[in-house]
Amino acid sequence: MRDFLPAEVRAREEVLATVRGVFESYGFAPLQTPAAERLEILWGRYGEEGDQLIFKIAQRGAKAGEEPDLALRYDLTVPLARVVAEYPGRVGRIFKRYQIAPVWRADRPARGRFREFYQCDVDVVGAGTGLADTEVVLVLTDALAAVGLKGSEVRVNSRRVLRGLIQSFGIDPSREAEVLTALDKLDKIGAEAVAEELATRGLAAADLLEALTGPADDLRARLAASDDGREGLAEVDRLTELVAPLVQEATVCFSPALARGLGYYTGPIFEVYVEGSASAIASGGRYDGLIGLFAGRDVPAVGGSLGIERIIPLVEAAEQRESPATVLVAVWDEGSRPDALATASELRAAGIPTEVYLGDDRVGEQLGYAASRGIPLAVLRGPREREQGLVTVRDLRTRAQTSVAEAELAGYIKQRGAT
Amino acid sequence: MRDFLPAEVRAREEVLATVRGVFESYGFAPLQTPAAERLEILWGRYGEEGDQLIFKIAQRGAKAGEEPDLALRYDLTVPLARVVAEYPGRVGRIFKRYQIAPVWRADRPARGRFREFYQCDVDVVGAGTGLADTEVVLVLTDALAAVGLKGSEVRVNSRRVLRGLIQSFGIDPSREAEVLTALDKLDKIGAEAVAEELATRGLAAADLLEALTGPADDLRARLAASDDGREGLAEVDRLTELVAPLVQEATVCFSPALARGLGYYTGPIFEVYVEGSASAIASGGRYDGLIGLFAGRDVPAVGGSLGIERIIPLVEAAEQRESPATVLVAVWDEGSRPDALATASELRAAGIPTEVYLGDDRVGEQLGYAASRGIPLAVLRGPREREQGLVTVRDLRTRAQTSVAEAELAGYIKQRGAT
Repeated sequence: MRDFLPAEVRAREEVLATVRGVFESYGFAPLQTPAAERLEILWGRYGEEGDQLIFKIAQRGAKAGEEPDLALRYDLTVPLARVVAEYPGRVGRIFKRYQIAPVWRADRPARGRFREFYQCDVDVVGAGTGLADTEVVLVLTDALAAVGLKGSEVRVNSRRVLRGLIQSFGIDPSREAEVLTALDKLDKIGAEAVAEELATRGLAAADLLEALTGPADDLRARLAASDDGREGLAEVDRLTELVAPLVQEATVCFSPALARGLGYYTGPIFEVYVEGSASAIASGGRYDGLIGLFAGRDVPAVGGSLGIERIIPLVEAAEQRESPATVLVAVWDEGSRPDALATASELRAAGIPTEVYLGDDRVGEQLGYAASRGIPLAVLRGPREREQGLVTVRDLRTRAQTSVAEAELAGYIKQRGAT
Repeated sequence: MRDFLPAEVRAREEVLATVRGVFESYGFAPLQTPAAERLEILWGRYGEEGDQLIFKIAQRGAKAGEEPDLALRYDLTVPLARVVAEYPGRVGRIFKRYQIAPVWRADRPARGRFREFYQCDVDVVGAGTGLADTEVVLVLTDALAAVGLKGSEVRVNSRRVLRGLIQSFGIDPSREAEVLTALDKLDKIGAEAVAEELATRGLAAADLLEALTGPADDLRARLAASDDGREGLAEVDRLTELVAPLVQEATVCFSPALARGLGYYTGPIFEVYVEGSASAIASGGRYDGLIGLFAGRDVPAVGGSLGIERIIPLVEAAEQRESPATVLVAVWDEGSRPDALATASELRAAGIPTEVYLGDDRVGEQLGYAASRGIPLAVLRGPREREQGLVTVRDLRTRAQTSVAEAELAGYIKQRGAT
């Protein structure tokens, strides 16, 4: 788990604020769920491997010998499903929400992976139309464009396309999940290794893999032969048609081998790549079954997620200063403290973020502090200046100094536009 | 632990954004620490009762029989102390940080108390001057004024005042903590009950209580007789003098009976009250010893905290709508979907937050959805309007409808200023 010091927080926050702005421009509304859920809500939702990565807690804290009955949230989708089931009246029939929040997994920390990391989700609950899938893809590609990641490629598929294919090659439908799990590794390990892995499980899938990577027309013809195949293809084409004219500087393509790891997808699925990213930086899909597990009624849902922890390092954010202040008011001596506080208060009232130097060091060290925190301007006032009603403004980048009349200080600084 | 649905999140966020703005205007910079700390960092820092309220977790998640070695953070001050000790070079000699984040306590949930709640802290590390204490008080009272809580009263005391008094009444210095804990209840249970509680512990404190609530001159005379008393009084007077001319619509007073519960305070302490709040809604003080426990060197520090969970209900926030969107684009029929998506995309590009209706219901229900989410305007377009290049804008509050030329839609909505 990581600490983020001020300059990092400010750089991260800049990206997140942009993303939030785009989410809200689509009418997605913020939801906040607690860090901990009841263990029974999370248990068994993420597969056996997932269960092992859940951080468990006991409700009563440190009382000895108590069984854990709470757990830190593992993702943001299951808490959403719980909320939809818990407050049907308040959530309404169609619920568009976003949530940007940390999740926790008791993983062995690997390079670039952490046990606390942020997820950044948008979901539409209650709408079964292709329009909802379209908006989820659009809001994510818009958000990527807004943070400066252009030229993205949207790869679209449908779980029904895969189901149709699996059936058409005579593979036992009960083994669909195994095939999908193996297919999900195609990008990483290649077709041969996937075929081998399936073969060791007694699944002859070489033909399937060939079809997935072969000519598109052959694949379409094969899909046309089954209900699932036809419907899946229609889903893909509809989504592509609606998305293509509106994505910003992105291309959309049918990617029949795209499988996505998670078990709960039921319809269209997608991944977004940008130049320079080896893996997808956004992804999602339709999962019409999950919320029903909690709500006890059918609730269609589609959602997507920005891989925000991978995105932040890709974004060339303006370098952030440590301090949010534009001005440091230096303190000449102990007798000048009230004067320094009053000057700072006036500058703040004029909308200029201002620090007073809070230590008891000499002015030279005070200026060094300002420079080290990235504060661009310092305001100084010795006894002689005070007599004359003047203030000295020092630019810490150029070291230029200017004398300004006391009453004109705020105006002068604003006019300089130093922020 | 609570869920916050969109309108609540938006109302809370409005308050927090204002507070953050004030903190940053003073040059306090954001720090983010993880939700979990190593258990050994937290254990024993909050007293025996506090230890019992720490939520413990095992690092390896669900592995059976493993001793917990992590814990959810209990406050934001101990993690700050750990950060200062861990990254001395990056933090610098004077470190002004704020953190607004949830903390967790395994408390029995009482009315208005929760096991997950937000704390909202500002601290100055590395500055031993009264200026630092002053800025902490000022930034908190400014933040209260900025969220609309005016007329606050700042009560100031110093732990050294209390130490001087305790000594002057011949009470064993080793029992100071017991006296302070009892004094902290003065507001709640009254002087008599406090005296009784101390008496049952064998502490004769009736005189002390009388002095604390008696004439100020007598008290000052008594304090003048000891080093601690004199220095404590000087701290209080210095802080009062610096703060008084600058607090916004607030009064500052010496409040000798103010004790504050936490053990780690060493110098000036304060509480802020506003009209209508029975207990303090902001508080803090100097704690010059705590960071040294982690850093292994003396590091002065002073900090304060807004009782943000108590403040939010006091703030009369503008009622927030569920949806951040200003416009709902209704979808006439399936064939109109591309048109609706394009219209929404244009409006967003013009800076107007816009939803497309994502279900497949009739227009009447679509308008009902918009009204229920607080979206003020709907945009409609039937086949006839499309032929004529027109769009209908419906105000969902007045039900007034206007026909607007397609090309003028964004301009018309912006000119209406509906947000």
